[in-house]
Amino acid sequence: MKKVSPLAPKGGFPDLPVIKGAEFSNVQAGVRYKGRADVMMVRLCPGTRVAGVFTRSSTRAAPVLDCQEKIGKPSDAGAAILVNSGNANAFTGKSGLDAVARVTGGVAETLDLPVDRVFTASTGVIGEPLPHDRITAKLAELRDALDAGAIAGAAQAIMTTDTYPKGAATTLDTPAGPISIAGIAKGSGMIAPDMATMLVYIFTDADIDQPVLQNMLADLTNRTFNRITVDSDTSTSDTLLLAATATGPRPGSLAAFQAALETVMLDLAHQVVRDGEGATKFVEVRVTGAVSEADAEKVARSIANSPLVKTAIAGEDPNWGRVVMAVGKSGAEADRDRLSISFGPILVAENGWVSPEYSEEKAAAYMKGQDLLIHTDLGLGNQQATVWTCDLTHDYIAINADYRS
Amino acid sequence: MKKVSPLAPKGGFPDLPVIKGAEFSNVQAGVRYKGRADVMMVRLCPGTRVAGVFTRSSTRAAPVLDCQEKIGKPSDAGAAILVNSGNANAFTGKSGLDAVARVTGGVAETLDLPVDRVFTASTGVIGEPLPHDRITAKLAELRDALDAGAIAGAAQAIMTTDTYPKGAATTLDTPAGPISIAGIAKGSGMIAPDMATMLVYIFTDADIDQPVLQNMLADLTNRTFNRITVDSDTSTSDTLLLAATATGPRPGSLAAFQAALETVMLDLAHQVVRDGEGATKFVEVRVTGAVSEADAEKVARSIANSPLVKTAIAGEDPNWGRVVMAVGKSGAEADRDRLSISFGPILVAENGWVSPEYSEEKAAAYMKGQDLLIHTDLGLGNQQATVWTCDLTHDYIAINADYRS
Repeated sequence: MKKVSPLAPKGGFPDLPVIKGAEFSNVQAGVRYKGRADVMMVRLCPGTRVAGVFTRSSTRAAPVLDCQEKIGKPSDAGAAILVNSGNANAFTGKSGLDAVARVTGGVAETLDLPVDRVFTASTGVIGEPLPHDRITAKLAELRDALDAGAIAGAAQAIMTTDTYPKGAATTLDTPAGPISIAGIAKGSGMIAPDMATMLVYIFTDADIDQPVLQNMLADLTNRTFNRITVDSDTSTSDTLLLAATATGPRPGSLAAFQAALETVMLDLAHQVVRDGEGATKFVEVRVTGAVSEADAEKVARSIANSPLVKTAIAGEDPNWGRVVMAVGKSGAEADRDRLSISFGPILVAENGWVSPEYSEEKAAAYMKGQDLLIHTDLGLGNQQATVWTCDLTHDYIAINADYRS
Repeated sequence: MKKVSPLAPKGGFPDLPVIKGAEFSNVQAGVRYKGRADVMMVRLCPGTRVAGVFTRSSTRAAPVLDCQEKIGKPSDAGAAILVNSGNANAFTGKSGLDAVARVTGGVAETLDLPVDRVFTASTGVIGEPLPHDRITAKLAELRDALDAGAIAGAAQAIMTTDTYPKGAATTLDTPAGPISIAGIAKGSGMIAPDMATMLVYIFTDADIDQPVLQNMLADLTNRTFNRITVDSDTSTSDTLLLAATATGPRPGSLAAFQAALETVMLDLAHQVVRDGEGATKFVEVRVTGAVSEADAEKVARSIANSPLVKTAIAGEDPNWGRVVMAVGKSGAEADRDRLSISFGPILVAENGWVSPEYSEEKAAAYMKGQDLLIHTDLGLGNQQATVWTCDLTHDYIAINADYRS
């Protein structure tokens, strides 16, 4: 039994609202794991609009290529999502696309849907053929178990090295009535810029056109899931789908809906970092005072991805010298003599040197906390960016030095 | 007593040839460490030409800024190099430049040299003021101990987290007589693209003009020291100086001299990787079949810097799926269905899928070796690049989670 991350949200998996038009089920298909659910199914009612963003890896897995082709095609039909854990169906050559065709074809037949409305994902080991017949053998059972209240089990079924299932939700009041948003996610390693071994499914009953949803999702992904990093590695399988069943009202204000959606996405993104492999600290890396947002992001990523910074955090060492190093290597415009660095409320360095009020003891005490803020002000402009990450510990090595064996 | 890296060259520090016109000494100045030499001095005869390359970090340390100003100024005077370990004199504001002025001024006076011909470097902790008076107090002692045969002690004095001193040499026969090249280096962490916590000093008696030396050094650095990575972090202090005392012949063929210099530089660069913090495997990452050298280098760096690839190597797991992932995230042009991957002599994957002749047992046996080759052919063109790295182990975490305490 895996130990749950010390950073897991207190209180366990949240109560998620029912989204009218979305039903969930899961099953033990034995794709790779034994004795646990490893396939989830979602059925979405006719009229549902599906938006999606995907990994930018040039070695994308077969199900990702299949989803990318289908996203955005106009349709009033229902839709389905089917996800297996244990096998990524990535780098499996032509057999990978065949396996996707078998699974999507089977789901389409079982649920009486056009195959273009069946979206799949696979997560787990790379390079081994997907035993698709184990999945298709369970489709009728999955269909018969579909239930609007069964989202928690779906979140369980898509876990791989995750130590807890991830869910988040919010409700937005509009003049035409409430709109609900509920999402689930998996991911804990290979988490980096440009999406990661991350699968995210978000559902809402809002009535919003697909192109609007798609734009909103892409924008928000850049500010949420693309701003987290565990190990700087990028998965071949990242998939984020947003399904709007249109069974509820049209939002009066798109901005208000977008803000509500962002809170759910950010919550799920943070939960992914909090389940980072071996993580013991959740770290917000905030960079301000940059000449451009791109520069601010470069510096924030450089700090958040630095193995030396991340091991110092694991050691509860306020080693701001390594933050300076990471600023220097980022490639962004920076002037050593204008740099300020704070750890939480503690001003560590300003104007290129240690602050006169800095106390190593206070900083070391701050580093013992579980949620940390590293704030770097470049002193050059007014642009900013934030990236979230975790520390780099012995357990990351232990988990990844023998994941396959 | 630190355990020597299992990858250290057998036979210990090599016998380096005497370079006429170069003398060395070292001393215990107590900059930070106790009971070991921590300052080295080199005196170079009049007429010596000095070439240098430096970190590209935007938060460069004070001694680096000072060296960069001086390199390439024509002079027939002698020269000196003074290096301390234990304190990097980096991110120390105006006091950092003051400390450099004190040290260079002291050396210039002690050795009767123009201050523009005194090159210094500092390596160790960032952000603490350099106790320059501990160094200047020892300058007369260092001068009195200068000895043409004392290069091994100098290599010892510049070590920080290094587990062994690094030296390499070669001799080139020319019609006008032999030319010798001897170099020393330090470095084991913060090793990455664009130089690293790395100090390298190479000496030759060849008679070559400074601008020629400088160009040659910059070219060769891109093929040697800039192609190694331990942890993808870049130091604020990297310095590589090449001093040609001109006490020997002019090389008949510059190409032959350049080839000889490259063997010494590559030998030292490999020794730095072999002393990578916590390293148990030395890994050559070779990428061929790229459409451009830049693409080949991107892919090679992406593989060599991937924490997931590096932990798999530590676990002796032939996890080629992670190599595929690293190719995909590199940003280089790649086509999954043309990729081939080999581990040493073992063809693992070709045309986007596992090779029919692949044997997991044979690959696992290969991974137990100490020197490994990961070869990726992109199948798209005829450009190539090689990067050298090491594995990522528990000891890297242990060393870096409490380096300061």
